[in-house]
Amino acid sequence: MDFPSKLIENAVEEVAKLPGIGKKTALRLVLHLLKRDEEQTMRLAESLQTMRTQVQYCRKCHNLSDEALCSICANPKRDAALLCVVEDIRDVLAIENTAQFKGLYHVLGGIISPVEGIGPADLHIDSLLERLRSEEGAGVREVILALSPTMEGDTTAFYLQKKLKAFPIRISTIARGVPIGGDLEYADEVTLGRSILSRIAYE
Amino acid sequence: MDFPSKLIENAVEEVAKLPGIGKKTALRLVLHLLKRDEEQTMRLAESLQTMRTQVQYCRKCHNLSDEALCSICANPKRDAALLCVVEDIRDVLAIENTAQFKGLYHVLGGIISPVEGIGPADLHIDSLLERLRSEEGAGVREVILALSPTMEGDTTAFYLQKKLKAFPIRISTIARGVPIGGDLEYADEVTLGRSILSRIAYE
Repeated sequence: MDFPSKLIENAVEEVAKLPGIGKKTALRLVLHLLKRDEEQTMRLAESLQTMRTQVQYCRKCHNLSDEALCSICANPKRDAALLCVVEDIRDVLAIENTAQFKGLYHVLGGIISPVEGIGPADLHIDSLLERLRSEEGAGVREVILALSPTMEGDTTAFYLQKKLKAFPIRISTIARGVPIGGDLEYADEVTLGRSILSRIAYE
Repeated sequence: MDFPSKLIENAVEEVAKLPGIGKKTALRLVLHLLKRDEEQTMRLAESLQTMRTQVQYCRKCHNLSDEALCSICANPKRDAALLCVVEDIRDVLAIENTAQFKGLYHVLGGIISPVEGIGPADLHIDSLLERLRSEEGAGVREVILALSPTMEGDTTAFYLQKKLKAFPIRISTIARGVPIGGDLEYADEVTLGRSILSRIAYE
């Protein structure tokens, strides 16, 4: 595409670098910004800059945070005996939204994936073990592995479980089975098979 | 959604104000930026800011431009006797991409739409008439109305045609008919009917 303005072209090219946004969408977004107040573009640009330069990773759980210690780790009301291991911050948000978990998190920052060349050393696994060895870690009763039910998630869970066996703690994973509201008829065989194998007592 | 970081929350909120981008997509984009070099975010933010503050509208055709006069209007090789009236800059880009038009443009900046409360006064129609009345406008032989084949486009074309009748110039609209590569069977009745009515001599 030939742009009549170099400024527009630059902006479109930068926006089109974002995942899932092509040149046509980028142009639509840029023209949208041009139609709105200058203020809106400034706020957007500034919020991205401040976010990128000032966001930190919590020194304890590696969650994204405005401070050195994230608001979840800093909250004395959370149960420090429960540790939930997740892949990334989106999983923290998803679990927080359920309001069912009151413990602390440990964000791995990824998942073991030989295809993408991500090994255990690239993840925050060492810091998890250190955390458990530390004075504070002595209070941890249970580590919940909340990883995606995929090949990579299972590999990571298996690796972690081997490492965690050395500690006198309970290791659990989130339940897998048919999703609530789903139709049995349409559940895939693997999920349905597993849900029968790991059936639970009816209360 | 409860964000663990105010900075992330701000960025997500600003990104989610863009059309077609929801909170989940905005979060994905923001997290993507966090994973990349700080440089990329800075370039994105700066390109948006410069674009918003420095882009101008061509004083002649109202196309977006880096200068007071856009590169098309400033090009002496373009045929000043042909004037193509379009709705917005995207249409200029689309027509330029065909490489079939060598004249100049006039960007209306919208289309008459009573539903959205856009009347003739909100568009660059007066400046089109002024342009035709000016010394330079005396050289214009033909005005091509390249508006969308919709109710609004037809209304705008009808309005323009009434205003343009006062000038000794040819008024034309882009051809409407079955799209090239399309199957006759699947063409809608209105388009097919029109394409029969406005049939052209076979050469």
